Amino acid sequence: MPRRQEPGPYELHPQLAADTHPLVTLELCELRLMDDANYPWLVLVPRLAGARELLDLEVGQRHRLTDEIDLAGRALRDAFRPFKLNVAALGNLVPQLHVHVIARFEDDPAWPAPVWGRVAARPYTPEALVERIRALQARLRA
Amino acid sequence: MPRRQEPGPYELHPQLAADTHPLVTLELCELRLMDDANYPWLVLVPRLAGARELLDLEVGQRHRLTDEIDLAGRALRDAFRPFKLNVAALGNLVPQLHVHVIARFEDDPAWPAPVWGRVAARPYTPEALVERIRALQARLRA
Repeated sequence: MPRRQEPGPYELHPQLAADTHPLVTLELCELRLMDDANYPWLVLVPRLAGARELLDLEVGQRHRLTDEIDLAGRALRDAFRPFKLNVAALGNLVPQLHVHVIARFEDDPAWPAPVWGRVAARPYTPEALVERIRALQARLRA
Repeated sequence: MPRRQEPGPYELHPQLAADTHPLVTLELCELRLMDDANYPWLVLVPRLAGARELLDLEVGQRHRLTDEIDLAGRALRDAFRPFKLNVAALGNLVPQLHVHVIARFEDDPAWPAPVWGRVAARPYTPEALVERIRALQARLRA
């Protein structure tokens, strides 16, 4: 992995800021909604400056991250009853550490392939976005 | 997610058994090598009957799983110096819970896309397999 400079303060990567909407700030992560109505798709971003790999987390941080993945997965399961959850930390294109938690259905546009690079993102309409955020926040704050 | 029958004892799914080679048994997981020389690619399978989703793990189990993901990632990093690690629990095709930990390079055959469904698996030659297993086991047991 490439060497990197000493990180400054945490800041959300501009690509993630452009592709996602804020849902809630958790103890470790920002939890955000991917702006793609093809799939109920959450993204967790640990609020740690310079983190690129799961290996960059201390043990307490990585345990906390799995707790927040669990929270995100439960919210998706309760809200959408998916056939499967997909959880992934890839980061080949956006270097800031982030974890995808995606609700998958046997009739979604990429099934059974992973979602990345299959079909173009379908941004939410304003009304659908408001409704989806409300449904998820209700479950995340319960 | 579909309802399921009460699980019997843990048994490795036949597809995972066919696609991977054993490396080491950890506290929670079997750690195995994917038989695809395109990428250094490890698979962790929690030895828990009936587990399909990360949500099926108790808190101690999921913390332990992240510790074993960390161990697998460190072994790949130390052995291969990848540009990026990819970590994913998908399970759209093989229902048994398993986690991929993959060393990625900017000149690998799928870069920068995720590896699934891109190029056909390239099985190791017997000599390369023995050497790769030896290199990884040395780091996993250190």
